[in-house]
This record gives sequence, structure tokens and C-alpha cells, in this order.
Amino acid sequence: MSKPVRISIDAMGGDHGPSVVIPGAARALAKLPDTRFLMFGDEAAIKPLLESYPALRDVTTVVHTDVWVKMDDKPSHALRYGRRVSSMWMALEAVKKGDADVCVSAGNTGALMAMAKFCLRTMAQIDRPAIAGIWPTLKGEAIVLDVGASIGGDAQHYVDLAVMGSAMAGIVFGRERPTVGLLNVGVEEIKGIEEVKAAHRVLRETPLPGLSYHGFVEGDDIGQGTVDVVVTEGFTGNIALKTAEGTAKQLASYLRSAMSATLMSRIGYLFARKAFAALKEKMDPRRANGGVFLGLDGIVIKSHGGTDEVGFAGAIEIAYDMVRHELMSRIRDSLLASQEARAAAVAAAQTETDA
Amino acid sequence: MSKPVRISIDAMGGDHGPSVVIPGAARALAKLPDTRFLMFGDEAAIKPLLESYPALRDVTTVVHTDVWVKMDDKPSHALRYGRRVSSMWMALEAVKKGDADVCVSAGNTGALMAMAKFCLRTMAQIDRPAIAGIWPTLKGEAIVLDVGASIGGDAQHYVDLAVMGSAMAGIVFGRERPTVGLLNVGVEEIKGIEEVKAAHRVLRETPLPGLSYHGFVEGDDIGQGTVDVVVTEGFTGNIALKTAEGTAKQLASYLRSAMSATLMSRIGYLFARKAFAALKEKMDPRRANGGVFLGLDGIVIKSHGGTDEVGFAGAIEIAYDMVRHELMSRIRDSLLASQEARAAAVAAAQTETDA
Repeated sequence: MSKPVRISIDAMGGDHGPSVVIPGAARALAKLPDTRFLMFGDEAAIKPLLESYPALRDVTTVVHTDVWVKMDDKPSHALRYGRRVSSMWMALEAVKKGDADVCVSAGNTGALMAMAKFCLRTMAQIDRPAIAGIWPTLKGEAIVLDVGASIGGDAQHYVDLAVMGSAMAGIVFGRERPTVGLLNVGVEEIKGIEEVKAAHRVLRETPLPGLSYHGFVEGDDIGQGTVDVVVTEGFTGNIALKTAEGTAKQLASYLRSAMSATLMSRIGYLFARKAFAALKEKMDPRRANGGVFLGLDGIVIKSHGGTDEVGFAGAIEIAYDMVRHELMSRIRDSLLASQEARAAAVAAAQTETDA
Repeated sequence: MSKPVRISIDAMGGDHGPSVVIPGAARALAKLPDTRFLMFGDEAAIKPLLESYPALRDVTTVVHTDVWVKMDDKPSHALRYGRRVSSMWMALEAVKKGDADVCVSAGNTGALMAMAKFCLRTMAQIDRPAIAGIWPTLKGEAIVLDVGASIGGDAQHYVDLAVMGSAMAGIVFGRERPTVGLLNVGVEEIKGIEEVKAAHRVLRETPLPGLSYHGFVEGDDIGQGTVDVVVTEGFTGNIALKTAEGTAKQLASYLRSAMSATLMSRIGYLFARKAFAALKEKMDPRRANGGVFLGLDGIVIKSHGGTDEVGFAGAIEIAYDMVRHELMSRIRDSLLASQEARAAAVAAAQTETDA
């Protein structure tokens, strides 16, 4: 039997802190009995809650701290007061020290990324980290990165995102060579920004062992499931993600109004309520709750701040999978196997700078 | 009584050419009797169709040409063979010559923009044009620009987009000072790309007479209707638009599957079918069919290529409104009234370049 997966948790993270984190962990544990937890935060809030979940209590070590990062603090401020002493930092540091295999937090994204960069540092070969999101599609799911960690980037950055995203897709989708698309404004080669075009040439001309390069994709290809991995920089990726979330909320609101508009529609709703429940589950953002920080020297999973215990359990399950299927060594191997393409990307980036 | 609005039409544009354009124009004419049409294209295809719509035939002049731009031609190629002689070019040239007040085409967007820049040129004060889209929101509609004409841009470009978008919003929404948001990845001032931050400072510190600056908005604010005008450059704007369209298609597909999954859900659908019809109409992209090209020395309306006659009629109605409410002189007045802010933006852009 393999070793248990050790998960460090920022118990104070998220809009609801321990009251969501602990039931969420209990729920994940029921599914994944070979996990152990290290929880950082206010002992007085955590311990009484743990008493309601004896199975979880028995596999959890609680480390007390009085300091935690607030959801609306600026990253720079959070770093100043929360370094070394906050529950978020301590959860990250547990990964750095080797006390845990992965860190999960529902806290402030900007602060978590700032602390993760500071505490774990980026991998030797990677300059700037990324957040990979799991996006529901008509064919299943896709990985979209970067959804907000690093803004802009040269050709090498895009190639690195393709390599790291594919390593993650290999685990999440069980594919040997996931398909990868570069997000652009059109499928014509003349379109798009210079860096994206340079990355396109590199990915097309230098085959990579761990992925199958599809070419450019457009915004509507994400939800259609055209590729397994969609690569873009953090500004565009974040706006695409939030625009899709906004559109989904908007359509759900239209649907609710339509179904309650008349007596007939309300009767129809009653007949079809199981179908609506299935639809609601399909549209449930908690199902794919958990951004994965890539490019750092350690695995960090960001759960949505407003999530409930089902969503937080989902984030823990993603964390578990990433450890069990060895995300870090997959990324290292992929980067090693991609040296030729990465060198070509550096040259392409150099040409851009000179031009 | 005011003068009729003269509309030049690329009758060969779109996936279906005259078979959609002519019924669409007839439908628009029924609503807007004070319009006159100049149609460019294959006489042999246009004239027989016009016979079915005598009212339209009586207010339409047909100009024959054997050349038209294909939907998948590259803009550069279209310009080479289609300059001066294609139905698209001739429709644009009618505006330039003063034979028409506005041009409508459902043709290839890239080619239409390339020809429009070449034929009409940009306005004296504007360097690069934009495409403004009308986006359905929970509160009504918003204008989003640029959805794909010009990629990237400095602070001045963003300020110009804000000024032009507000002039258009004044017409579409009848508001004196439409609210404007700059699309960004967060509402914190420290976030986002340099050019967007510089534009934010200018818009915040130099009040503009024709708009009310709201500040940064995120992707999900578009559909929530947080502001009347959302400003971004063409790369991000195009990806946001297509991502929203993809999400809407995806959710419609989920809904269809859910409603046909079981006998009960099919019965429910029957009871609620009027509600579903209303929902379908609400989600109908034809309702807001028509991108408006801004920043050119003339008004050009781009209809979706795949639209039907209802959608094409909608594009003509937008064209009509833009002429009737004097979009061009509103933009010129707004730019004139914004000289101080535009100068500040130039200075900000200069600082960026020096930095």
C-alpha cells in the first residue's frame, strides 16, 4: 500500500473559514481514506468542529496561530503582516519543509499567490507561475491556464504554460498526449499578438513529447471542448473565465424568471424538476472547484473563497490526485523533454525583443 | 419631415448573400419607411428577389458588380482583388462619396475592416478603429468595445474607446452620461496591465463631459450590466465575446438535453413551452446583431455572417439609429470636449514609453 497523501490546509481561508473547511475535509476523507491533514488556524474554532467528525479528527494535526489573511487584503499588505505567522503562510511552509505533499486554501487568491511565490519559489526552469482552472465543456472538461497569476508573457512563457498544462491534463483526464490550443482572436495565422504568434510557430515546428499541438483556438472553442488544454496569459485568461461565469449566472437568472412567469410554466417546472436538478448540478461551479498553481516548487490548490463543503471537498480531491499521480515530477520530466522547444522559444522571444 | 436615411448595402455579404439581405431589408423598411437603399452586387441575383418586395424595390437602386469578397478570404487577399470593384468596397465607397449615410455588410469582418480603413480612413483624431458590440445584460444591454478591430493599445487608445463608446451609448440607450468601465482582472488599483492602469488614472482624474467613469470592471460585470460601456482592446474583447457566446451555446445544449431526458421532463417542457420560447427569444443573438465600426470617417455596421433576415433587419435598424441620431457628429463633439483628457492620456502614454 502506498503512503498516505499529506495535505496542509489553511483552515481560516475562504468566506466561511473552519465551518466550511472542516466538513469539507471530512467529506473528502470519506472518499479518500488514505489522507492525513495538517490544519493551520485558530485552535479554538477548529478543535470543537473536529469533535463532530471523529474520523477526520484522528488523522488531523492542528497547529494554532492567531493570524490569518483577510479576503480583501492587498497581497503586499498580507505579506507584510502574515509572513511566517499566518495560517496561509504556515500551510504553504509545511509543503516547503516536506511536512505535507500539497497545500489547499480557500483564501484570498492574490495573497496566496504572493505568499506561494515568496515561500515556495518558482521551479528552477520557470520564471513566472500560473493558475490552471478546470473548465466544464460540452465534451467533459478542459484545463485553461493562466486564469490570473501572471500578466502578459513572451513566447517561452506560452510554451511553458503548454508543457505544464499538459502535464496536469495527463493526470486529470488520463490522456497520454493531451491536445493543446493557443487562445487567439482568429484561426488565421496573420492574426493575434506577436508573442502568441511566436509561440504558435515554436509549438508547430518543434513537436513536444507530452502534448499534441492543435493550433489556435478562439473563445467559443473553450466551452465546446475543442482541446484538452487552452493556453493564454493571465489577463485574457482571467477575463475569459469571469466572462463565462457571468454569462452562466445571467442565463440561469433568465431561466428562473421564465419558469416562474406563468401558471403553466410553473406546472411545467414541477413536471421537469428532476431535469432542472440535473441541469443545476451540471452547471454547478463547485464541481470543478480548485485552481491549481503551476510553476512553483510545490503544489498549491486554490479553492473558491465562497465555496461550501462540497466544493471544498472537491478542491481536496484535486489536491489528492495531483500528489497521487505525481504532478511535480511529471512537470519536471516534461520540461526536461521539452528543452529543444524551450530553446526555440527563447530564441523566438529574443527575436521579438530585437525587432 | 427629415430627410430619408440612405443605406448602402453589400448585398453579397454573409453566408447567404441576397437571399437573406433582401428579405432583411424589406423587413427593416416596413418598420422604418423613411429609408432608401443602394445595393451592390450581382444584379441577376438581386433583381428577381426584389420583385417579391415591391415596396423595397421602389426605394432601392441596384448597382451591378461581378466581384464579391468570400467569407474565408484573408483581408490582404480581399483587398488585392476586391479594391474598387467588389460589392463590399463599392458599398463603403458610397459612404465616402456621400451617396449613402451608412454602410451595412454581413461579409467577412477582417476584409470589411481592412477595406473600411483603406476607403474611409480613420477620423482625424483617431489612430486605430474599433468594433463596438451590443451585449445583452441582466439590466438590458451594454456596449462592449473593441471586440476585435485593433489589438493592444496605449492609454490614449483606451480613452478614445471610452469617448467613442459613450457617444454610441448615448444613442442606443438614450443616456446623457453613460457609465463606463475599464475591463481589468481585478478592482484593486495595483492589478492589470500598465496601459489600462494609465488610462484608469486619466479617466479618474480628468472628468469627461460625455460619460461617467465607473472604474475597473471584471469579466462577470459585463453580463450583470454594471456599466453601460465596457472598454477593452481588441484581443481581450474578442476573446470575451466569443467565450460568452460559447458559454451560452453550451448552456442551451445542456438545457435541451435536460428537457428531453425523461417522459416527465418532456411533459414539463410542453407545459412550459411558452416560457421556453420567451427564454429562447431572450437568448437570441439576432436581437443584438450588428457590430458598429467606430473611429472611421463614416459609419459602417457589420452584421453577423450567419444571420437570417430578422438579424439582418436588426443590423439595418442599428444603422438607421446611428444616422438619425448623428453618431458621427456626436463623436466629433465628444472628442473635441475631451481634449484635456486626451492630452493627459498622450502624456501618460509617453511616460509608459519612456519607462
